[in-house]
Amino acid sequence: MHKLVLLRHGQSTWNLDNRFTGWHDVDLTDQGRQEAAAAGKLLRDEGFEFDLVYTSVLKRAIRTMWLALDELDQMWLPVIRDWRLNERHYGALQGLNKAETAEKHGEEQVKIWRRSYDTPPPALETTDERYPGHDRRYQGLTEAQLPLTESLKDTVARFVPYWESDIAPKVQAGKRILIVAHGNSLRALVKHLDNMSEADILELNIPTGIPLLYELDADLKPIKSQYLGDPEAAKKAAEAVANQAKG
Amino acid sequence: MHKLVLLRHGQSTWNLDNRFTGWHDVDLTDQGRQEAAAAGKLLRDEGFEFDLVYTSVLKRAIRTMWLALDELDQMWLPVIRDWRLNERHYGALQGLNKAETAEKHGEEQVKIWRRSYDTPPPALETTDERYPGHDRRYQGLTEAQLPLTESLKDTVARFVPYWESDIAPKVQAGKRILIVAHGNSLRALVKHLDNMSEADILELNIPTGIPLLYELDADLKPIKSQYLGDPEAAKKAAEAVANQAKG
Repeated sequence: MHKLVLLRHGQSTWNLDNRFTGWHDVDLTDQGRQEAAAAGKLLRDEGFEFDLVYTSVLKRAIRTMWLALDELDQMWLPVIRDWRLNERHYGALQGLNKAETAEKHGEEQVKIWRRSYDTPPPALETTDERYPGHDRRYQGLTEAQLPLTESLKDTVARFVPYWESDIAPKVQAGKRILIVAHGNSLRALVKHLDNMSEADILELNIPTGIPLLYELDADLKPIKSQYLGDPEAAKKAAEAVANQAKG
Repeated sequence: MHKLVLLRHGQSTWNLDNRFTGWHDVDLTDQGRQEAAAAGKLLRDEGFEFDLVYTSVLKRAIRTMWLALDELDQMWLPVIRDWRLNERHYGALQGLNKAETAEKHGEEQVKIWRRSYDTPPPALETTDERYPGHDRRYQGLTEAQLPLTESLKDTVARFVPYWESDIAPKVQAGKRILIVAHGNSLRALVKHLDNMSEADILELNIPTGIPLLYELDADLKPIKSQYLGDPEAAKKAAEAVANQAKG
């Protein structure tokens, strides 16, 4: 039996500002930092020992990972940062206020961009300063890999192959892995692990700052999955995420 | 021309307690954290961009690295942690108070352990709880790699081959590398780069929290090396280190 822990980063400054974030590199708020430390304490209190950590190249996930490893007293763990764990790219909506966007494009259109599995938001131009090709952290990516926008389907299509090629073999080799990532990259993985339908994954809201433990068989089929800590707290946190404007 | 930056971690709690530290995993003091952040600010103000970071598996170096990357706004950089960048192992002296040790063994003997190039402190027994073989972060090491004690010569003998095999080829390939490590592992590297004698390296005191910039030619011979920031501050910090009991 293999154990795998998923952790979604805590509240970011653009959650507070009600902006579409995507690949924009915003930091955690003080509340987000507290959520990250609390996640680390939960893992410590339950005696978790990890061998390897994966995270994205976005600082809200990296800082969450730092704070959790600090509380766990496992700062020495090897950490692999990879862009394929990034949040879903939100295209030309990145940086826009969600309320203003709804006024401009209509509630219905914004709902489609947020709640459709395969309809991406409007694409960026490559001349746009928000295009990831202008950021040196993505300089190793091919033009085909650099997103102009993404649907959840696109996020699944970049993360799941990385899971299959890089992470899953290590889980099967017995490594105890912690993945610290984002709402939609974690959705991509949960959809894959639990073999969920497109409709069902859109209804799933992963709470921030609450470790999600998977127990997997030798073929990495889930035997069981559960949020650590108080189940009521996890439920409330998931509802809070569901009620908040997505992005 | 290649650039390489070395950074020694800031003050730790056992510096304050005047204890021999070695591989014991103590944290930074508040002053140490300030030193680390100040080092990051210096690098940021001079416009440094890195491609890759190396550090040890000890939290005083890792936290220094975290604080520096945070100030640099380069938290996304790949980081490689390796035990070969650890501080010199201080054997059976680890954890002992330096003044008490001098009373017990005599000032002269302690001076030899501290200032000799190739005389190690008394060795640990493998049954000692301080033996690194009991710490899971070192579980991948062979018995021959697990130190019972180390002279500076032993530290050179474990770090320089790693430099040659893993880090130097990346510097030569054009990667801009930051190494965040310890007084004696950095001494080992400086001895190698500057081709210093055993006597000379023992006289060299690397200040904490002040980035040391090397400019290297294609064969990694130093063209120039200098501490960043105010030269007087670097000189004073090196003197402070020289005057402080070593370990």
